[in-house]
Amino acid sequence: MAIKPSVPKGTRDFSPLEMGRRNYIFDTIKTVFRKYGYQQIETPSMENLTTLTGKYGEEGDKLMFKILNSGDFWNEVEKKNTEHSSKALTGVISEKALRYDLTVPFARYVVQHQNEITFPFKRFQVQPVWRADRPQKGRYREFFQCDADVVGSDSLLNEAEFVMIYDEALTRLGLKDFTVKINNRKILSGIAEIIDKADNIVDLTVAIDKLDKIGLDGVKNELLTRGFTQQDIDKIEPIILLEGNTQQKLTQLREVLASSVTGLKGCDEIEEVFNYLKLAQLQTANCELDITLARGLNYYTGAIFEVKTNEVQMGSIGGGGRYDDLTGMFGLKGLTGAGISFGADRIYDVMEELDLFPEETAQTTQVLINCFDKTGEFYAFPLLQELRAAGISVEMYPAGAKIKKQLDYANSKNIPYVVLIGSDEMQTGMLTVKNMQTGTQEKLSSEQILAKFA
Amino acid sequence: MAIKPSVPKGTRDFSPLEMGRRNYIFDTIKTVFRKYGYQQIETPSMENLTTLTGKYGEEGDKLMFKILNSGDFWNEVEKKNTEHSSKALTGVISEKALRYDLTVPFARYVVQHQNEITFPFKRFQVQPVWRADRPQKGRYREFFQCDADVVGSDSLLNEAEFVMIYDEALTRLGLKDFTVKINNRKILSGIAEIIDKADNIVDLTVAIDKLDKIGLDGVKNELLTRGFTQQDIDKIEPIILLEGNTQQKLTQLREVLASSVTGLKGCDEIEEVFNYLKLAQLQTANCELDITLARGLNYYTGAIFEVKTNEVQMGSIGGGGRYDDLTGMFGLKGLTGAGISFGADRIYDVMEELDLFPEETAQTTQVLINCFDKTGEFYAFPLLQELRAAGISVEMYPAGAKIKKQLDYANSKNIPYVVLIGSDEMQTGMLTVKNMQTGTQEKLSSEQILAKFA
Repeated sequence: MAIKPSVPKGTRDFSPLEMGRRNYIFDTIKTVFRKYGYQQIETPSMENLTTLTGKYGEEGDKLMFKILNSGDFWNEVEKKNTEHSSKALTGVISEKALRYDLTVPFARYVVQHQNEITFPFKRFQVQPVWRADRPQKGRYREFFQCDADVVGSDSLLNEAEFVMIYDEALTRLGLKDFTVKINNRKILSGIAEIIDKADNIVDLTVAIDKLDKIGLDGVKNELLTRGFTQQDIDKIEPIILLEGNTQQKLTQLREVLASSVTGLKGCDEIEEVFNYLKLAQLQTANCELDITLARGLNYYTGAIFEVKTNEVQMGSIGGGGRYDDLTGMFGLKGLTGAGISFGADRIYDVMEELDLFPEETAQTTQVLINCFDKTGEFYAFPLLQELRAAGISVEMYPAGAKIKKQLDYANSKNIPYVVLIGSDEMQTGMLTVKNMQTGTQEKLSSEQILAKFA
Repeated sequence: MAIKPSVPKGTRDFSPLEMGRRNYIFDTIKTVFRKYGYQQIETPSMENLTTLTGKYGEEGDKLMFKILNSGDFWNEVEKKNTEHSSKALTGVISEKALRYDLTVPFARYVVQHQNEITFPFKRFQVQPVWRADRPQKGRYREFFQCDADVVGSDSLLNEAEFVMIYDEALTRLGLKDFTVKINNRKILSGIAEIIDKADNIVDLTVAIDKLDKIGLDGVKNELLTRGFTQQDIDKIEPIILLEGNTQQKLTQLREVLASSVTGLKGCDEIEEVFNYLKLAQLQTANCELDITLARGLNYYTGAIFEVKTNEVQMGSIGGGGRYDDLTGMFGLKGLTGAGISFGADRIYDVMEELDLFPEETAQTTQVLINCFDKTGEFYAFPLLQELRAAGISVEMYPAGAKIKKQLDYANSKNIPYVVLIGSDEMQTGMLTVKNMQTGTQEKLSSEQILAKFA
């Protein structure tokens, strides 16, 4: 009993202050999703293991939090005479796991509800996911994902609008310098094709993707160790080092990729997205073609996005792309989709570092009424009610506490105004209104107070 | 792969329509919580088993969803040479469980963060909880709880404000006839005392609590089988059958309970709460003293609340009360608290039955722009952007689809207006605006459209 209670490793409590800030981020992003026609859904925290297993690779299967079957689970083990090893037992004593991401549950949702859905289906989803990763700074075992996806439309308008969504949401949150990097899987395929290494595209892109971190020589070495020849590298090098604006890069790319139909298609798609974006007049986002951008390559088939802030040192704060067969894993073939995700925890850290949270996010109660006895409480009650009827968030501190305690309470809750009602105030009807930030006081009637705050 | 995917038993997907309605309920309640000075917190979905075990009785321990330890859990079993039974194994292969309610995690939060908290601490929390109950109509294995609690204040102002919160939130949601029943555990204790059966208070209240369901004779029989004498029953009967308004009931109760200090204290407390409520001028709620109301008796020490709608047949849609030692289980003694809960799923069902959801909850996009080719898309793009800049939720249907398909899309998403941009429209600059509800059409310029919706 004397042991101080704690939360499980890698999980967090969120205090009122943190909740105010998190709500501010999520509400802003949701508002923008809605403006672009995305509708919210939610899926259960737990999914059947048959839904999740095998969708995230071996590592993912290991890191999933599995739910122990309720009831007499061991009975099942004995009936089936299951081998006594963690691996063999898991499948018998557990049939559900916690959501590992929002994408697979979304695919499951689309297939399960396909007859109720009108396509294109634009949905957003903001829910926690769970991963039994080793916790470290910025990596949690429970964290929120914040995704928007459209399925059933191959129009590149969707890709352009995703960039516009990033632009509007991050601008609203106060970010002043960020870049949306855009690439297209078909361009990466084209590069692999022209060196006759279409089968090695994963090795190719894993190496190229590291340019930022290990530099050109590092990438070359990596390519050599991954089985590419010096000749391959000579062909690839100019592509990696492409310079100029998007139009110039595309012109050069088209020359190099001239023999790859897929590669040229990728160039066309990139160009169309940029054509939309020219019309869109983005507010803040810098957009650039970055052909070293790969992300979860096996997954994406068209556009690939990544968002980086240029104001502080931080990993990507968003990403996404197009995938052509998401629902195939559940038997619904040929449904194309595209989606993006906001990295809410990182955005939180960026905003904290740049001091971007508006003061209102730290405020809940606007006015605190302080009385000193029951008489004061009953005297103040009508004012309390009138302020609330006018939509003001107001509290009355329960009578009996010393004034210092009451003012400390106001300060700790960041309440900007306190109305003090002592015996003088009750006699004259003129109540003391204290501005907690400046410390100034004024005497106002109930009517004047109502007018001041309503 | 051909098996249609599904969600685990007792869990639910929420469609955009359902999310709109659920958000409407939760947002309304949260707004009212905030108006009364309650601040939001969130706690992790999983808690250590040491935090949860033993807090909900044997049944609760069984119904908790336990998380299987990640990694080689069986290794631990072999090392410890644990007996091969479900009961013995659970404690070794699992050390975490999903939240079973919001109250115990809140108590854990208060104790863990006691040095950062200024008391009285008024917090609300809206999060899912999980119980491995047998699923049935209206009972789910994952459902949201919606709680507000204050700890560190014994003022009955808090109790009165809880009734005011119920009144305001449910009135805002459109309920037109509901009752907040109020009782006090001390009155129940007083009744047990005057028949010298203080130790049998649980039996007494379990029986009385059934008055609604089994009638007076049923209650009497139940009391007899639970070891009460005919003499006891003669004394209790007039209390159960108390009539009149609250004041009249209190007068009679005070006479009957004259020999019980605790009972009289309960009467005083009830009276003080009603005195506040007289000043509060409730909008819709009927308030009544109901001395048969017991709820989770072992838990409550003062006020007990329950909310019932009188418009449809439905169990309670809210409840709560005062508890004097919530944090004691984690070693922090003497912190009094009181709290209430809204039954969101039942409120949803009530509102659906009474058709109370405003039409806006079913709407996301306000305007759909329909083009028929890429030229149209690029023509329409500036309007799309201007509408969004004005804060309107607007979508452009990707070019290429037949008009019928586009209008079906608008209907399925409940989009009230469609702007049609064909070649005529592009030539004249006068766009066709169709009201999807009435079917009427008008020709408007881009400027006029902007003025119409902004």
